[in-house]
Amino acid sequence: MPKVALILSGCGVQDGSEIHEAVLCLTALQKAGAEIFYCAPDMDFTSVNHLTGKSAEKRNALVESARIARGNIRDIAKVSAKDVDAAILPGGFGAAKNLCTFAVDGPDCKLNEPTAKLLRDLKSAGKPIGAACIAPALLAKLFGADNHPELTIGNDAGTAAALEKLGAKHKTATAAQAVVDRKNRIVTTPAYMCAKDAAEAWPGIEAMVKETLGLIGK
Amino acid sequence: MPKVALILSGCGVQDGSEIHEAVLCLTALQKAGAEIFYCAPDMDFTSVNHLTGKSAEKRNALVESARIARGNIRDIAKVSAKDVDAAILPGGFGAAKNLCTFAVDGPDCKLNEPTAKLLRDLKSAGKPIGAACIAPALLAKLFGADNHPELTIGNDAGTAAALEKLGAKHKTATAAQAVVDRKNRIVTTPAYMCAKDAAEAWPGIEAMVKETLGLIGK
Repeated sequence: MPKVALILSGCGVQDGSEIHEAVLCLTALQKAGAEIFYCAPDMDFTSVNHLTGKSAEKRNALVESARIARGNIRDIAKVSAKDVDAAILPGGFGAAKNLCTFAVDGPDCKLNEPTAKLLRDLKSAGKPIGAACIAPALLAKLFGADNHPELTIGNDAGTAAALEKLGAKHKTATAAQAVVDRKNRIVTTPAYMCAKDAAEAWPGIEAMVKETLGLIGK
Repeated sequence: MPKVALILSGCGVQDGSEIHEAVLCLTALQKAGAEIFYCAPDMDFTSVNHLTGKSAEKRNALVESARIARGNIRDIAKVSAKDVDAAILPGGFGAAKNLCTFAVDGPDCKLNEPTAKLLRDLKSAGKPIGAACIAPALLAKLFGADNHPELTIGNDAGTAAALEKLGAKHKTATAAQAVVDRKNRIVTTPAYMCAKDAAEAWPGIEAMVKETLGLIGK
């Protein structure tokens, strides 16, 4: 049974993990027989009221992510690359505001260090990483300059250009597709970067999860 | 394209809609070609920190449900049975603490009146209602005494006895099954009342959604 870190960043598209993507990722992982290690950074962020779109009170990414994980979650700073065989990152603004600051700073974004450390250690150990929606931006920032990974965020020209500025090679894809970079062991799918709903995101997310699991030990 | 109210009660298993169930319900509805009307009661509740399990600050069910609905949600008090062809209720403690108080008061539970009104009006109009997990308790309270609907909450004897006390007929079922009461146009599935994970809940939830949609106009 492969062990997979599901890296969350809160609970809600505007300030955390995109909920549909997170649930479709975990469902695909469970269908494939994987054991999930839910994790998120223990960090505060400014929440967004999803009814009004306005900024609201401070919340904590680990505490809010525990809603998606049904309480079974750990601080990502305490997860070692040795504990798992792979990692999966759903999207949502949390991936681009909490795990890194790409949504605010673009190619000059900063990284959440415990998250970056786990991903770097997984990459060094040859363990695969899958990402959906805007989460590939984090991988472009981490690995673009040295490894030039082939990634997708769908078909948005501006975002694709920002990933290429970081050294990644962007490949246009639909929500039904997953882009596999076998050399770098990185798999990506556009999800809500171009899907109109969860049903349209599902085939690409399931493909991304299966391809990621298929790269374990390869 | 059938129009379906997806009735939410917050965002998180301990104090709102069970997130996996809600997302699997909406994905099944979208796969089946339904148009979803997300709605929730505009009411405050005591939130639960899902990391520690402790009671925390007040939150609002409509505002938190908007996280699952990606902002596209309305106050259930403003939804008329004329607007939709059917309704679906995911589970989670929100269904048994916010939509009604079954988790606290058992068969003596009180109902959230705007939610109860919509469900009564749908029933009177012959429009089908589907429910997962503990949400069937709300239907037992609403319709048990007069209509004796056949329902399932899985295989938990204590909960089943409480539903029967309300006048419902309980039928044992697995997470893969949906129980269809054609006379009352009510469809139920156990989901996390007995599923070990989202992948195990998915077949029953998809069956519940399909059977509910199949009862429209019948």
